[in-house]
Amino acid sequence: MNAPHDLHPHAAVRPVPTAMLAALRERFGERCSTAAAVREQHGRDESVYAATPPEVVVYCESTADVAAAVKLAHEHSVPVIPFGIGSSLEGHVLAVQGGVTLDLSRMDKVLRIDTADLTVTVQPGVTREQLNREIKDTGLFFPIDPGANATLGGMSATRASGTNAVRYGTMRENVLGLEVVTAAGEVMRTGTRAKKSSAGYDLTRLFVGSEGTLGVFTEITLKLYPLPEAVSAAICHFPSVDAAVRTTIQIIQMGVPIARCELLDANAIRGVNAYAKLGLREQPMLLMEFHGSEAGVAEQAATVQEIAREHGGADFQWATTPEERSRLWAARHKSYFAALQTRPGCRCQSTDTCVPISRLAESINESIAESDAAGIPYWIVGHVGDGNFHLSWLLDPNDPRELAEVERLGVQMVQRALRLDGTCTGEHGIGLHKMGYLLDEAGPVAVEMMRNIKRTLDPRNIMNPGKVFALT
Amino acid sequence: MNAPHDLHPHAAVRPVPTAMLAALRERFGERCSTAAAVREQHGRDESVYAATPPEVVVYCESTADVAAAVKLAHEHSVPVIPFGIGSSLEGHVLAVQGGVTLDLSRMDKVLRIDTADLTVTVQPGVTREQLNREIKDTGLFFPIDPGANATLGGMSATRASGTNAVRYGTMRENVLGLEVVTAAGEVMRTGTRAKKSSAGYDLTRLFVGSEGTLGVFTEITLKLYPLPEAVSAAICHFPSVDAAVRTTIQIIQMGVPIARCELLDANAIRGVNAYAKLGLREQPMLLMEFHGSEAGVAEQAATVQEIAREHGGADFQWATTPEERSRLWAARHKSYFAALQTRPGCRCQSTDTCVPISRLAESINESIAESDAAGIPYWIVGHVGDGNFHLSWLLDPNDPRELAEVERLGVQMVQRALRLDGTCTGEHGIGLHKMGYLLDEAGPVAVEMMRNIKRTLDPRNIMNPGKVFALT
Repeated sequence: MNAPHDLHPHAAVRPVPTAMLAALRERFGERCSTAAAVREQHGRDESVYAATPPEVVVYCESTADVAAAVKLAHEHSVPVIPFGIGSSLEGHVLAVQGGVTLDLSRMDKVLRIDTADLTVTVQPGVTREQLNREIKDTGLFFPIDPGANATLGGMSATRASGTNAVRYGTMRENVLGLEVVTAAGEVMRTGTRAKKSSAGYDLTRLFVGSEGTLGVFTEITLKLYPLPEAVSAAICHFPSVDAAVRTTIQIIQMGVPIARCELLDANAIRGVNAYAKLGLREQPMLLMEFHGSEAGVAEQAATVQEIAREHGGADFQWATTPEERSRLWAARHKSYFAALQTRPGCRCQSTDTCVPISRLAESINESIAESDAAGIPYWIVGHVGDGNFHLSWLLDPNDPRELAEVERLGVQMVQRALRLDGTCTGEHGIGLHKMGYLLDEAGPVAVEMMRNIKRTLDPRNIMNPGKVFALT
Repeated sequence: MNAPHDLHPHAAVRPVPTAMLAALRERFGERCSTAAAVREQHGRDESVYAATPPEVVVYCESTADVAAAVKLAHEHSVPVIPFGIGSSLEGHVLAVQGGVTLDLSRMDKVLRIDTADLTVTVQPGVTREQLNREIKDTGLFFPIDPGANATLGGMSATRASGTNAVRYGTMRENVLGLEVVTAAGEVMRTGTRAKKSSAGYDLTRLFVGSEGTLGVFTEITLKLYPLPEAVSAAICHFPSVDAAVRTTIQIIQMGVPIARCELLDANAIRGVNAYAKLGLREQPMLLMEFHGSEAGVAEQAATVQEIAREHGGADFQWATTPEERSRLWAARHKSYFAALQTRPGCRCQSTDTCVPISRLAESINESIAESDAAGIPYWIVGHVGDGNFHLSWLLDPNDPRELAEVERLGVQMVQRALRLDGTCTGEHGIGLHKMGYLLDEAGPVAVEMMRNIKRTLDPRNIMNPGKVFALT
């Protein structure tokens, strides 16, 4: 097992030359900032890592803006970091080699809605909640929901997924095409609005999940789905995490087309109860959602209730109105901020592994045993229908013992996932912290292939350098 | 619009040096053949192109065999062409630059079935029918069905899809991971058995659809699906192709989870009636299949019948037993060979475009009008639920006028697909014939990016050279 990557990479900071800064100022005026507060804000994400600010922040409003900034960066061999809303969890936006951060949050237009084709084209700064608000009247929705109200650019760049992926897939399955500004500042397109294609290399899928290291996304064409005729959500409590997980495994193996199947452990529920006064039983819980026709939803629900009961599931509570559903989902979506408040001054270190569904119980149970033994507060939520779960530790960032202990627990959890034919990250991405794990998972030949692709597409190593793998 | 690629590429044949031939003979013995009949058989596919045989054919039986052969080819800069069963339609396996064809049909083991995880790992020579036979007792099935009983290696290499893709996706969505022999003869793996991952560049998706130009697949891990509780197939006749297509569009837009939705025009039906004595009405027809619970299937069927009736659909015939279903699907799967027999001595030139579903009627109607005007016999089948259809012309391969006319019709059809935001190939791939179209569709920047990836992964241009794009 390779050690997690050193957070202070050896590659030196690459300063922005005066001529480039002048050119940026001329092109972008007040949309080019070197103010400390602006830089600081763009140098961090939701991870534990200390802010590592860029030298300059440029607010882009168009593809032409992005192309102009990247061309200058290319000319001067200066790092470029695309930035959406800063909700990533693995240090993706930290300016570890300095350079220019492109803030894309103002590129927030829904450009084209094709209701008849179930497709939409957006700018990268559109957030998932904004998109769903803007298409509310079309009878369609975009299902991918990683929890945070992330931008679709960021979600594409990290191959995000979240709660609905068990039924609707991840960003891998839902991005039809991209407009990309390449490392040379050229504008290109990948994909079409056709649902499938065998035309050449799948550049769309190469860019999706490339974490800003191959190009900047300036337009994203996504699949949409008809709003289901009926939606029903339910919670069910279980005597143990194991029982909840075994219920999930059976639901998937039986092919029930469940739309969401989320696990919260007792610690997560304690947090949301304290934070949002939800009054939930502080016991492992599955939070499920069913989409379909009225009859289909009823049928799925009946099957799942039967499976749950076999595993000791009890106290089913149903929510069929949007308001009741929102209340239940608030528990899931607030779990992160709720947990942070249970230990004042703490930071959260979260890791996410994904394993074949039959290995999920083993994967979670052993991780729990290790965390319990270590005595570091933690909580678990998981998109367990996909075999994906997050273990999050609440640690004192100033306590080297806790930092080391959490690091050790994370290594064990990833080692186990790989041993069980799984992956070191189901949806958070590699970023800074998992570079060593990527090498363990993919092997040196595959990682060298990734590096070679990077060298070819970005010969000056300006696109979000120092992430995913080290380039030497 | 770029002209379709010249079928006699300018790159010269690269002879197999005597030393390499000797090494192959020593390593492979009788599994290394230079017999004219063997070479001829491996130099052609189901397309109209004349055979272009390799210099040598090697029958591989293991990953080690493939690696050994590729290493020799790498050392001597000799082309390597992976060959499954020769069912491709765009000249993928023609040895346009000579070299060694690796026949992978003996690598036909199902290596590992994980019923609990709904995954299977196979060697590349396993065909889709064989796979479904071997997993019959597990309660699972592999849905991707391009019609031909293709190998899973070939299906992965061309990003195949077919009749079930409207519900289950294409090879893009269903390949979880690969073992690949690289152009240098190294063995690497991509992906894991986890359902999703954000770990690094999506090399799996880069290889899927790369048409043998980036490496040779030696193991393929696929998703499986639980056999649906209920399956029901139906045919319905329509007064026009347009009415059938408009029915399809509405089915998709309403989100009916139809498993198969195939169009056959009257010409296709005339062919299968003559060939298989099916006695079907010689009128445009949709052939549909529904998967789900008993109640779910009944509900889908009722919705679809209502939509079809609104468009003049009549004479619904249902098939719920496997035998009845096989009879109906025989019509679809035999359409190719049936059509060939309607014009003795002819060859079939087929093209497949895919457009956003709302443009499908326009796309098909105009293609029909042009083919009718040209007076070349044709027939249409289509995976219309995906916006994908095939127009196949029956031409006298010795008649230059017919060849030119079919070429012109194909150009028009692709031009239209691109104008309608679609793709020049939904599932057949680029191969030899669509290289010019790829340039039209993806643009020079994207195609140059593909070329650069190829140059990086295969610096000696030995992996199926002369396909997908020209390398200069």
